[in-house]
Amino acid sequence: MPELTDIDRQEEMDSLIREIRNTLARNEPVEETEVETSSEAVRTLVQQQALSRLASKIERLHAADIAKLLESLPQDERLVIWELVHSDRDGEVLLEVSDSVRDSLIEVMDRDEILNAASTLGTDELADLAPDLPEGMMQDVFTALPIDDREKLRFVMSYQEDTIGGLMDFDLVTVRGEVTIEVALRYLRRMDSLPDHTDKLFVTDRDGLFEGVIHLKTLLISDPETVVADVMERDAIRFHPEDKARDGADAFERYDLISAPVVDEVDRLVGRVTVDAVVDFIREASDEERLSQVGLTEEEDIFAPVRKSVRNRAPWLAVNMVTALVAAQVIGLFEGSIQQLVALAALMPIVAGMGGNIGNQTITMIVRELAFRKLGGEDIRLLYGKELKVALINGVVWGGVLAAVTYLMYQHAGVSIVMMAAVSLNFLSAAFFGVTIPILRTRLGRDPALGSAVMITAITDSGGFFIFLGLATLFLL
Amino acid sequence: MPELTDIDRQEEMDSLIREIRNTLARNEPVEETEVETSSEAVRTLVQQQALSRLASKIERLHAADIAKLLESLPQDERLVIWELVHSDRDGEVLLEVSDSVRDSLIEVMDRDEILNAASTLGTDELADLAPDLPEGMMQDVFTALPIDDREKLRFVMSYQEDTIGGLMDFDLVTVRGEVTIEVALRYLRRMDSLPDHTDKLFVTDRDGLFEGVIHLKTLLISDPETVVADVMERDAIRFHPEDKARDGADAFERYDLISAPVVDEVDRLVGRVTVDAVVDFIREASDEERLSQVGLTEEEDIFAPVRKSVRNRAPWLAVNMVTALVAAQVIGLFEGSIQQLVALAALMPIVAGMGGNIGNQTITMIVRELAFRKLGGEDIRLLYGKELKVALINGVVWGGVLAAVTYLMYQHAGVSIVMMAAVSLNFLSAAFFGVTIPILRTRLGRDPALGSAVMITAITDSGGFFIFLGLATLFLL
Repeated sequence: MPELTDIDRQEEMDSLIREIRNTLARNEPVEETEVETSSEAVRTLVQQQALSRLASKIERLHAADIAKLLESLPQDERLVIWELVHSDRDGEVLLEVSDSVRDSLIEVMDRDEILNAASTLGTDELADLAPDLPEGMMQDVFTALPIDDREKLRFVMSYQEDTIGGLMDFDLVTVRGEVTIEVALRYLRRMDSLPDHTDKLFVTDRDGLFEGVIHLKTLLISDPETVVADVMERDAIRFHPEDKARDGADAFERYDLISAPVVDEVDRLVGRVTVDAVVDFIREASDEERLSQVGLTEEEDIFAPVRKSVRNRAPWLAVNMVTALVAAQVIGLFEGSIQQLVALAALMPIVAGMGGNIGNQTITMIVRELAFRKLGGEDIRLLYGKELKVALINGVVWGGVLAAVTYLMYQHAGVSIVMMAAVSLNFLSAAFFGVTIPILRTRLGRDPALGSAVMITAITDSGGFFIFLGLATLFLL
Repeated sequence: MPELTDIDRQEEMDSLIREIRNTLARNEPVEETEVETSSEAVRTLVQQQALSRLASKIERLHAADIAKLLESLPQDERLVIWELVHSDRDGEVLLEVSDSVRDSLIEVMDRDEILNAASTLGTDELADLAPDLPEGMMQDVFTALPIDDREKLRFVMSYQEDTIGGLMDFDLVTVRGEVTIEVALRYLRRMDSLPDHTDKLFVTDRDGLFEGVIHLKTLLISDPETVVADVMERDAIRFHPEDKARDGADAFERYDLISAPVVDEVDRLVGRVTVDAVVDFIREASDEERLSQVGLTEEEDIFAPVRKSVRNRAPWLAVNMVTALVAAQVIGLFEGSIQQLVALAALMPIVAGMGGNIGNQTITMIVRELAFRKLGGEDIRLLYGKELKVALINGVVWGGVLAAVTYLMYQHAGVSIVMMAAVSLNFLSAAFFGVTIPILRTRLGRDPALGSAVMITAITDSGGFFIFLGLATLFLL
């Protein structure tokens, strides 16, 4: 039950963070690695009181808010607060925090605490948590489950996070098509509560085969004598566990769904997907995309240890170092030319950099389109035509401007002409590869976005240097 | 009612697109500008039949699928298909298509068609469409509305798209707290249908002041004799029209909401927000962010006219040209040094480029954090400390590797040492500005993400050239 019912609770969150800081600051400065010692030292008498005040405030927060609070704190303060969270809520909080914070929290939990947290979760939630549990722990969690749930857990865990199977849960309320609305209503009234996000009941036959859905609002407004089968929706959107989560998210967005049935290959109802799982998926996918553009993973949060950050950032730096060294080799080929006409050294980064811009713009447009459909042969032909035209016009326009500026800088007509030609050619190459890279990656079954920016920049850098210095060498020296 | 009930309908969509292509291709090649003439020519007898077959297929599609179909077609084919869409559905399809496609469709509609399309929409939907209608048209739409709706429309339109007011609708079902569940159920049964995404009723007092919410599932499982006020949720999350849409989206995600009440400053219920509007908002915001990173706007789709594309891409190219020219000036300062030691020209882009990478990584981490909370003084101090440490370690490590590679290339120890020092210093500068730029922008009330990449790259390019060439000039020449 959230204490803070208003969206302005950001401020109250900030004040809670301040209170935590003040409470913990009264204490000796906390050593970075000795969490255990520090949290013992914290427990002086005054501290004790302040902490229990904090604990009762935290108690009243929604699990998602506790998660946010933990994410907002540096490692050592985070662990002190984590101890204040009532153990019954550990499970739901662990589900809400980011991957990197989750790791840091699980690290300090002992076996019993983890098992206890796991016991408060549903099977679909356990499946989300499983990859982050310590080695061997999952087996214990598994054996603690009832037989029925073990099977469900095994089912969900057999699907990747980016499939419908990874998003689905088992909180199904089903009715039979031949009963009347009144019987269905009576059946519902006997339940203590309905699962969250139940906007419809799933109608199945005696073999559990999916027949349709009936909306709660239909139940509410229909004549109680009506038979369910007569008012249910037969052609409701349904998913298969192996469908891509992204396609599912598109369908939720397109058809404004709140929940949807998941059926197996013989149309047996196996679970459902709800909009909250879809929203989380969309958010995480876009977060991941943003990070992966600069070669980062979700593993790092802003308070991650330096060591972890250095490791997280290394792969992208390594790739970029290699492409930069290739570009340096290209420049090296023309050292003689640069020595004769040193203006080339100052101008070559302009040709390379602007080519990179054009290429990235083209790639972004195409990746965006590929996110929601395949491009056919005709589309691709049109695209090459259009992008090359745009690049040519931009090349002539911006190349012309640059030629003028260059002339003002160096009063050398040859350099200006070479500049304009090089910019135009590099723009054309950028547009060509900007279309080719994402389409080729899609054809090869890869993610068109991942690494595209690095590739196009490598091409426009090395290519731009080569074109510019090559033209200069041919025509000016 | 969607014809295609399965998520695999992508294929069926593709086959429909092929059918459209074939139908239109049988005709004379379509001139790009003479849509009117071409669609007349299309109407030969055989064509007529094929088109009406297509029309009846399109008829059966969900509005969102028709929108997707139109977005997937180049301009001239798109307009032929748009004519096949039944005019009653024009309104809902216009709501679903992207901004740039919407413009192209509205352009070919006459006044009556637009008014007719508008008449099929709710006030909150009209508000979404309004900015794209031709000059003066909105007044006509406005006067065609009942007085009551005019006021609502004026209300919604007074809020920006990125506020709760811009997302909300007026499809409220309210009950009074003092009635019993049974009365509430009888009231619902008298309605023909409930609005989409009604998961709860809003409880108000006689003055329309908001008191709480009651979930449909509570209605279904409670004893009919219970009084609504006894089982309603009093501390439900509520929004104000001027709240930021992004904060609203966070709350929907955090608390797994399907609908939420919007109240004014005296707690009077004025509308509601539903999860489908939130999902659309999240999608659009992330789409916009992706485009804005390469300086593009939503105005362009992949089939946009070349002229429009050139214009859309110009501002970013202009900004980048200016920053590239500044970098060229910096290099120009050291022309003498480059002439003496031409290896500098080949190596300087490495220093600049890798600095840009480090800076963009830092900015991405911080923008991600700023998306969900303010960073306090203590946080910022920690962040500078951490990012500078990470940068220094990376500088020494990668600078060391580069020094070694450089030595292999040039056998010049001095160049290697300068390389290592320059990489380290440029990494430190990248980390410093990578923290400073987004935090400063937030303090100034700006979007921390927008343009950050361009700024940091400008700094690491010019700065990297200056540091490297400066050190080389001081110590090697």
